Amino acid sequence: MTDSQNHRSGEDSLIARYFRPIATDPGAFNLDDDAAILQALGGDLVVTTDAVVEGVHFLPDDPPDTIARKALRVNLSDLAAKGASPAGFVLTLALRAVEDAWLQPFARGLGEDAALFGCPLLGGDTVSTPGPRMISITAFGRVAAGRMVHRSGAKPGDRVVVTGTIGDAGLGLAVLTRRASATALADVAGNALLVERYRVPQPRTALANAVRDHASAAMDVSDGLAGDLAKLCAASGVSAVIDAKSVPLSPAAASLLARGRADIAAIVSGGDDYEILCAIPEIRLEAFEHAAARAGVAVTSIGTVLAGNAAPRFLDPQGSELVLPLLSYSHF
Amino acid sequence: MTDSQNHRSGEDSLIARYFRPIATDPGAFNLDDDAAILQALGGDLVVTTDAVVEGVHFLPDDPPDTIARKALRVNLSDLAAKGASPAGFVLTLALRAVEDAWLQPFARGLGEDAALFGCPLLGGDTVSTPGPRMISITAFGRVAAGRMVHRSGAKPGDRVVVTGTIGDAGLGLAVLTRRASATALADVAGNALLVERYRVPQPRTALANAVRDHASAAMDVSDGLAGDLAKLCAASGVSAVIDAKSVPLSPAAASLLARGRADIAAIVSGGDDYEILCAIPEIRLEAFEHAAARAGVAVTSIGTVLAGNAAPRFLDPQGSELVLPLLSYSHF
Repeated sequence: MTDSQNHRSGEDSLIARYFRPIATDPGAFNLDDDAAILQALGGDLVVTTDAVVEGVHFLPDDPPDTIARKALRVNLSDLAAKGASPAGFVLTLALRAVEDAWLQPFARGLGEDAALFGCPLLGGDTVSTPGPRMISITAFGRVAAGRMVHRSGAKPGDRVVVTGTIGDAGLGLAVLTRRASATALADVAGNALLVERYRVPQPRTALANAVRDHASAAMDVSDGLAGDLAKLCAASGVSAVIDAKSVPLSPAAASLLARGRADIAAIVSGGDDYEILCAIPEIRLEAFEHAAARAGVAVTSIGTVLAGNAAPRFLDPQGSELVLPLLSYSHF
Repeated sequence: MTDSQNHRSGEDSLIARYFRPIATDPGAFNLDDDAAILQALGGDLVVTTDAVVEGVHFLPDDPPDTIARKALRVNLSDLAAKGASPAGFVLTLALRAVEDAWLQPFARGLGEDAALFGCPLLGGDTVSTPGPRMISITAFGRVAAGRMVHRSGAKPGDRVVVTGTIGDAGLGLAVLTRRASATALADVAGNALLVERYRVPQPRTALANAVRDHASAAMDVSDGLAGDLAKLCAASGVSAVIDAKSVPLSPAAASLLARGRADIAAIVSGGDDYEILCAIPEIRLEAFEHAAARAGVAVTSIGTVLAGNAAPRFLDPQGSELVLPLLSYSHF
């Protein structure tokens, strides 16, 4: 092999070394071809795309395995909210250089999560960039024909339900970037939990079937609960009222809130929660809660869908409407 | 609407303004949801991903409509080489800012090509980046079950066939970047043709069915004919011999070659051709050529697949082997 061939083989050997081992699906053809085959298996294929950019969606010194996990999991979160089961994904990876010290843990984290969530790598592209690292993932899910859950479909009287806890990731980012209050004030263990929630979301894949069977509308919370609820309401042509005190908080977030070190408006406006927000008809709520318990996913009813097209309101325990200074996060 | 909501709505309004009009497939749900539905329609779905980065795969001052066309077409080229018909695509667009003067022609070019090639936008993600613009596209194609054409499958005795002309895009890049010989020496019209070939590849979508029906192996030429032929041979476990004089050239490239302003080794090693390279069993060659003629795509037989695993050889008219200084282009 000549030097020029070694030069040429940069991308090929990168793929062989790091990504071939995790391309376990037969449709990936061992990453030896220019394309993959995706099997629909008789249902609908759900397609979602989310990209993360260094310095924007993750921090340059975040551990590479967590960057890989987040890049995949934000897509898995979308699939779960649509009621779909993971079927596979393709990856675009833009790098300044082939750095083994970064790629090795990145590929390990990606492979572990692909196995954990049953979502194999099907293919992708690696490109050189002079700019920040960027990972774009397109993920595929399967759902019975016609059963994808939409943002639209929420009806007045439906309960507004969220999974997990809200606000942790936004606080975790504050810890990492040493913004004002959070840094000093959660304890060390609490800080670590908040940072972990920012870096490694927990896609609610286990809840996908329950969402598919019971939700009238659903989406994942990526840009902040308040803003994403506003989107769900707008798509459904409804409004909603939320009991701010019932928004589920982690012990770390609750402690910060109780001590005045975080405020509820920021918590419901922060991004990166990657929880499922859904509307559940009252008559289905109990069945949904049982299904969630069986799936091991915490769900909390936080409010009610209302008729009308006013922006959703968040009410504090005194019945006053929260003022949300920034409805939710946008990078533009 | 408050300022904060205006801030929030940056991505949403960008999508509404520029991309909703070209998301014509019902499975795109008007880009109002978090995911799209892709219909397999009973066959296999072929998935391919290619990304382009500003300053690497396109030049910062390339016209935005040509950047969009190239980003989509490099993926359409992959689908055609796999024997698949376009079914749709998803787009990740990383931008420093929302610049209408750039986005308007970008979206127009993308929409025109989506319509031209019957490949509708299904969804995507727009992200902010402090770095170069980047466009990553994942495209989907349909092919009858089990009929995707692979890189592997070429057999000794098969003819090596390419579509269109080779080397124009590499010379076009040389014109644009004012590298040595090419700039001065093609005439103005020739230069314009070469630049156009660099900026706007011609995916051989019309040839997909003929490739599917007749080719034993195929891929698109993106990293240079010589290097990509080496990959096809390696995947197939064969070698090949190419008659360098039979490599099809445009009049502009042929003129540069005749005047000693370009050399054949560079032409067969240059990137960005986006032609189809395939192996056609001798017995199918005539039928393939007829099908290509009906599809309006020029095809040229340039050599023969041989047994063995030596690197493919390019022979000049004197029967000497071309020395290829750089087997093909790599960004790493």
